[in-house]
Amino acid sequence: MGKKPLIMIANDDGYRAKGFYKLIELMRNIGEVVAISTEKPMSGQSHSITTQEPLRVYQADSDLDYKLYVCNGRPVDCVKIGYRFTDGRMPDLMVSGINHGSNASANVLYSGTMGAALEACLDGVNAIGFSLLDFSPNAIFDHVDCYVDTISRMVLKNGLPKGICLNVNIPKISDNQINGIKICRQAKGRWNQTFEKRTDPFGRDYYWLTGEFIEEDFSDGTDIFALKNNYVSVVPTMCDMTDNASLQLLKEWKL
Amino acid sequence: MGKKPLIMIANDDGYRAKGFYKLIELMRNIGEVVAISTEKPMSGQSHSITTQEPLRVYQADSDLDYKLYVCNGRPVDCVKIGYRFTDGRMPDLMVSGINHGSNASANVLYSGTMGAALEACLDGVNAIGFSLLDFSPNAIFDHVDCYVDTISRMVLKNGLPKGICLNVNIPKISDNQINGIKICRQAKGRWNQTFEKRTDPFGRDYYWLTGEFIEEDFSDGTDIFALKNNYVSVVPTMCDMTDNASLQLLKEWKL
Repeated sequence: MGKKPLIMIANDDGYRAKGFYKLIELMRNIGEVVAISTEKPMSGQSHSITTQEPLRVYQADSDLDYKLYVCNGRPVDCVKIGYRFTDGRMPDLMVSGINHGSNASANVLYSGTMGAALEACLDGVNAIGFSLLDFSPNAIFDHVDCYVDTISRMVLKNGLPKGICLNVNIPKISDNQINGIKICRQAKGRWNQTFEKRTDPFGRDYYWLTGEFIEEDFSDGTDIFALKNNYVSVVPTMCDMTDNASLQLLKEWKL
Repeated sequence: MGKKPLIMIANDDGYRAKGFYKLIELMRNIGEVVAISTEKPMSGQSHSITTQEPLRVYQADSDLDYKLYVCNGRPVDCVKIGYRFTDGRMPDLMVSGINHGSNASANVLYSGTMGAALEACLDGVNAIGFSLLDFSPNAIFDHVDCYVDTISRMVLKNGLPKGICLNVNIPKISDNQINGIKICRQAKGRWNQTFEKRTDPFGRDYYWLTGEFIEEDFSDGTDIFALKNNYVSVVPTMCDMTDNASLQLLKEWKL
């Protein structure tokens, strides 16, 4: 029997999150696990890194039969520093999540779960970000097993093209069965931000960022469309943000 | 004479940064300016947002003939909250920077300067991130004027395609004249992170994230190639991260 695949797991919901432990449980069926999470929940960290402050890392529990670390940085920091704890092996697979909340459509840009996956992807590691469409800390993950398992094994078996990782979103459990898996493109959309203005006890104003998501793309073939129809959405997501279609247009501007 | 164009300016190097004031100076020649910066230098903030803490904003100086605000959040927060200070008008142009340091190649993924530009782009605003290839707080910006002015005026005149913003990088001043402007694609590359491990006075380990940039793409047509040849690089950068070329490949996996 060959060596078990090495799987790195990162997370942005803090090391006690249900989704993180679900992913650890599922990946332990597939390979050897090194898991590293942010210390606390850190939504919306995107591809940010910590350069102004030092990072600290500690082993959360040394009695486990897998490696579990906690880092005071962002999800991308977790991936970068996580390579220190793999005994010199590059991971065969890096999975991030399972995020509590959607990373479909433009949410991919704000997502620390996808930031971590893109970071591993830059490093040439096969990477997948998994998210569940349920923000609750008590979200139910019972229905995700076969999808996470199937997609992870398939990526390990086939490999992903260089510079591409997967953005996988899973519908919230409902009365309807999940209909399967759809390969999709990222739907157009954006957050319409609203700020709740408050005044602190010292008379100074402060704001809470809230908002609602505006869908701008109702065609089929998108991740939002798949999720609405109770499919798991899989978007091949790339590190190259060039819009090749605009290159010629801009050249005609004769700058 | 028509109404002057409204230009929003964001920055991630703190409101005292030289590059920010250079951009304000140049944009005041073109339109009415609302400028909003992070409170302190915040490198590597990508598209991150502040959701766990409240935001505060204050007018840095009310005696100016343009609006100057400071926000305690990230660059993307600055854009989102900046719309509160434009008297209900959407900006005709949003410019970010001028960043002290390169945002070419894969740096676009980590960049708060480009995070801010992509945020405005999601909101349907013409947006440009400007960066100078000089990290120094005392970087010299004397040679940037005509490039920043030309590109900004051209974007105002022609508009950008929906979902596309520009990532503009400008060579550091040198003995050689700048050769002009090149429309480019994002070069492949990545950071090879190294962590400097230290021990604090209490015997606990901590790490500083450092590293070197690894170029993986030496072909012409890239931003790195243009910059090396002393051209200003302009990359059309998109909010849609789907790799359309992989859609068919993944469908063949029969997930």
